[in-house]
Amino acid sequence: MGLFNMDMGMGMHMEGDIARGEHVAISTCAACHGRYGISSSDTIPNLAGQQAMYLYGALTAYRDKVRHVQVMTDVASKLSERDIADVTAYYAHLPDRKW
Amino acid sequence: MGLFNMDMGMGMHMEGDIARGEHVAISTCAACHGRYGISSSDTIPNLAGQQAMYLYGALTAYRDKVRHVQVMTDVASKLSERDIADVTAYYAHLPDRKW
Repeated sequence: MGLFNMDMGMGMHMEGDIARGEHVAISTCAACHGRYGISSSDTIPNLAGQQAMYLYGALTAYRDKVRHVQVMTDVASKLSERDIADVTAYYAHLPDRKW
Repeated sequence: MGLFNMDMGMGMHMEGDIARGEHVAISTCAACHGRYGISSSDTIPNLAGQQAMYLYGALTAYRDKVRHVQVMTDVASKLSERDIADVTAYYAHLPDRKW
């Protein structure tokens, strides 16, 4: 799997490594959000095919305590900037729902 | 289209009227989130097939200013409890992505 290019606006781009992002997802996110981005609970969002910059924005909002879900803040604050870009790319690139 | 039954936990259920929710979606949400829940921007989340109780939780969080996105607070605070249940049902019931 390749790189996923994300337009951050104002001429800024960010590349996410989908394969590396898959490893981050499996070790960090899949328990709740599902191996293929279909969550295990009705109250946990599906991530498969979600808009990349929205995912990036949500993760950094949790990391920076702009959004208040403790478990997500705990998780996001352990992710590097690269992890966030790669896991965003992984879930955003997932083409279809698997349910 | 029928009713969409949502388990809120603790024995509580909520029914959303998909057809009525579609009208709410068209008049209130579709401009940004798309007629079929596929958003018009990379920073705006897709809603098609999202988990119902997550959508319900997010909308009420914006309404109650637990989540801080002004446009969403403005929109959500104009929706009745019934509107929220119905529009949640509409987007949650959308089976597949249309992109």
